[in-house]
Amino acid sequence: MSKRDKIHDAVKTALVKDGWTITADPFEISYKKVTLRADLAADRIIAAERGVEKIVVEIKSFLSPSPIHELQTALGQFELYSTYLQLSNPERKLYLAVSADIWNRFFLREEVVLVVEKYQLPFLIVNIQTEEVAQWTR
Amino acid sequence: MSKRDKIHDAVKTALVKDGWTITADPFEISYKKVTLRADLAADRIIAAERGVEKIVVEIKSFLSPSPIHELQTALGQFELYSTYLQLSNPERKLYLAVSADIWNRFFLREEVVLVVEKYQLPFLIVNIQTEEVAQWTR
Repeated sequence: MSKRDKIHDAVKTALVKDGWTITADPFEISYKKVTLRADLAADRIIAAERGVEKIVVEIKSFLSPSPIHELQTALGQFELYSTYLQLSNPERKLYLAVSADIWNRFFLREEVVLVVEKYQLPFLIVNIQTEEVAQWTR
Repeated sequence: MSKRDKIHDAVKTALVKDGWTITADPFEISYKKVTLRADLAADRIIAAERGVEKIVVEIKSFLSPSPIHELQTALGQFELYSTYLQLSNPERKLYLAVSADIWNRFFLREEVVLVVEKYQLPFLIVNIQTEEVAQWTR
């Protein structure tokens, strides 16, 4: 199993352990002539009176030698996906999933923090070893 | 000469015809440990009392079979580059340069217009045949 697939599976397992049901793998975002493919969709019942929480998750492995280039890709993908998601599935919120290891090694660097804050990027941080959710950042 | 190089050279010539001096090719955006490489920097004297207008231009050929994927790349690049440019060279404004042909064939599509508007992307549109500036969008 490739490292990429390992992260994909760990994110799925972590979501299930966190009470989510995986409803699509992959999930297609369609708006007019545009079709984009996000990694996962998941639903969770919050409370009887509040209904179901729905998310779309794009998994970013950050395994390339240039994490700043991957950040650029993740940023463009997040912006484009959320624009069309808001139009096609406004009830779903988009998250970027990364490993706790990448979060600690890359995302806490000052020059990266300022990008994440400026664009209010929401992350789902997963501990790949235990396959558990470490943190939802917003 | 590849099509990509052709666009690069046409954009440079169009800027010179428009009164600009090319000051860097490529132009490095550096902030702390991050170094990003944009295609061009150019300066133009506006008026004696107002000084010099300074821009950075990232040229997007949109020659790949998936223009929506190129839009995603351009969007991520624009956001990341402008974030660090604002910190390292706040006097410079960033533009995305595209051919008039791509502008007319792709950027006027409704699902693309809404992305350009949402993120207020500024374009320099160049007529590749005449090597002249067709339009500055904002």
